[in-house]
Amino acid sequence: MSQRGSMVGIDIGGTFVKCGLIVGSRVTMEQRIPTARSSTPRSLQDGIVEAVRSFTHRVDKRIEGVGIGIPGLVRYPEGVVRSCVNLTGWRDVPLKRLLKRRLGLPVEVDNDVHVMTLAEWTYGAGRGASNLVCLTLGTGVGGGLVLDGRLIRGWTGSAGEVGHFPVQENGPRCPCGGIACLERYVGNQEVIQWVKAELARGVRSQIPQLVGGQLKRLTPEVIDQACRLGDPLARQTWIRVGHRIGLTLAGVVNLLNPERIVIGGGIAKAGKWLFEPLKATVRRRAMRGLRQVSIVPANLGVSAGIIGAALLVREG
Amino acid sequence: MSQRGSMVGIDIGGTFVKCGLIVGSRVTMEQRIPTARSSTPRSLQDGIVEAVRSFTHRVDKRIEGVGIGIPGLVRYPEGVVRSCVNLTGWRDVPLKRLLKRRLGLPVEVDNDVHVMTLAEWTYGAGRGASNLVCLTLGTGVGGGLVLDGRLIRGWTGSAGEVGHFPVQENGPRCPCGGIACLERYVGNQEVIQWVKAELARGVRSQIPQLVGGQLKRLTPEVIDQACRLGDPLARQTWIRVGHRIGLTLAGVVNLLNPERIVIGGGIAKAGKWLFEPLKATVRRRAMRGLRQVSIVPANLGVSAGIIGAALLVREG
Repeated sequence: MSQRGSMVGIDIGGTFVKCGLIVGSRVTMEQRIPTARSSTPRSLQDGIVEAVRSFTHRVDKRIEGVGIGIPGLVRYPEGVVRSCVNLTGWRDVPLKRLLKRRLGLPVEVDNDVHVMTLAEWTYGAGRGASNLVCLTLGTGVGGGLVLDGRLIRGWTGSAGEVGHFPVQENGPRCPCGGIACLERYVGNQEVIQWVKAELARGVRSQIPQLVGGQLKRLTPEVIDQACRLGDPLARQTWIRVGHRIGLTLAGVVNLLNPERIVIGGGIAKAGKWLFEPLKATVRRRAMRGLRQVSIVPANLGVSAGIIGAALLVREG
Repeated sequence: MSQRGSMVGIDIGGTFVKCGLIVGSRVTMEQRIPTARSSTPRSLQDGIVEAVRSFTHRVDKRIEGVGIGIPGLVRYPEGVVRSCVNLTGWRDVPLKRLLKRRLGLPVEVDNDVHVMTLAEWTYGAGRGASNLVCLTLGTGVGGGLVLDGRLIRGWTGSAGEVGHFPVQENGPRCPCGGIACLERYVGNQEVIQWVKAELARGVRSQIPQLVGGQLKRLTPEVIDQACRLGDPLARQTWIRVGHRIGLTLAGVVNLLNPERIVIGGGIAKAGKWLFEPLKATVRRRAMRGLRQVSIVPANLGVSAGIIGAALLVREG
């Protein structure tokens, strides 16, 4: 019994390569391969081919195609992975062409934040908006843009890098080659470093207690936990991060005139502690006529990666 | 004898309302009405109706439609002028609907920088690029975006305001409601103020002599003149302005991944004195993979306004 609309979505993350069989917005089957075991272009292809075969065997559905989200620079629509954040040995790999040949199915490859944007736009918090900015806050700050009803790729496929807008003229160097990029102020590591520096200069907080005195165990989740306990340093952390992001988003609002901004990723779990100062800064700083932009959390969670990857097949 | 492709383009400037009869990229006939005489919505409409009629009578061409570029916020595609920079009494004027009724022809209305972008993209320095950022440097700093092959309007029609990206957290207030917007550092008045301040603190320059000691006669053109004479203050002015614009453009390059940036407007006449430091900053500050973006001067000159306005008719 064949059912139209079954697609495979693949999300290459830092820990796992997630492979899902997707029907519409539903994940009907899922497999995970540790990324460490599939980190070369060759082993990743083998893992994907195996997963697709096992889906094909286990269900009696026709698979329309395979979509892949990669944390790196992807030349779209050619599907050439120019470089990849977590994986080594990836330089100008024509993943789309290689996999298409092995699978005999349509294959699409794009950047993971573009894919997440596609998912949130189609089924999630971005639904119904023709002009949308998606942001992911984590180790890095990624972004995706939907403008006048289409996901924007840009000239070489990398449009959307909100995290690499400089916040001022001088500041820390960024691995991207720039200086004072937003990411260098609000990425996971930078946030943790700031909290440690505040503790080192004697600011009182429940955070050291929450990590049993071992500050190397400090994570954004611990800061969230302290926030809920009313810890002033933890709350100050998200106020500061929210304000910084809000300043750049005010500029993005002026430049792109979006209707909605969707924010996801680990740090976004801080919820209102982060969103309130962030929104307040956008409302205060953006051009008067544009402040009505709505700013909401992403709502597909970790499934956005495989759902959005599957959507590439339809879009392509 | 009817000829396909004759359109009327109207460019509402600070001094003149220019009306042109356009065939392709050629201006075959032009009329100017002093803006002061047509500054109300009613008198502007009368002037436009009269100009279109005179074109119709004087040539035996069928006019396909009328396109209008307005220096202000325009809700596109409805063609409602929300506000206008130079003209008073303009608030939510449904110019497209009103003129369509009076002329019995298709009418399109958009922001003047969108219109200039459309012209440079179709016939000028932006030709052939699918991803293009256009910038106009003058009293204000305006911008237009072509992304993945389409002119971007955004949610309420105001996409492209590069001049209102904040360059840092604190700084001068901007009439837009923001703080430290790029425009507040590189707009005509700000540039002139800076030169005056430098002169006031004793910096030596040929500029005072060029204006016969009357600094109120200082304009960007005088700075250009001094630049060509080798005046160090004049050259320093464009280095400073170019660097400032370059910093924001580096962020715009990272965010939008354009293939080309086209820069026009009065200040752009400074030529290499401005473009060289501007390019140097973009090359140094943008993400490594994106620095090959080309940065070129606009090349349609003042005709871009009427040519681009005429193009709206075909696009609409």
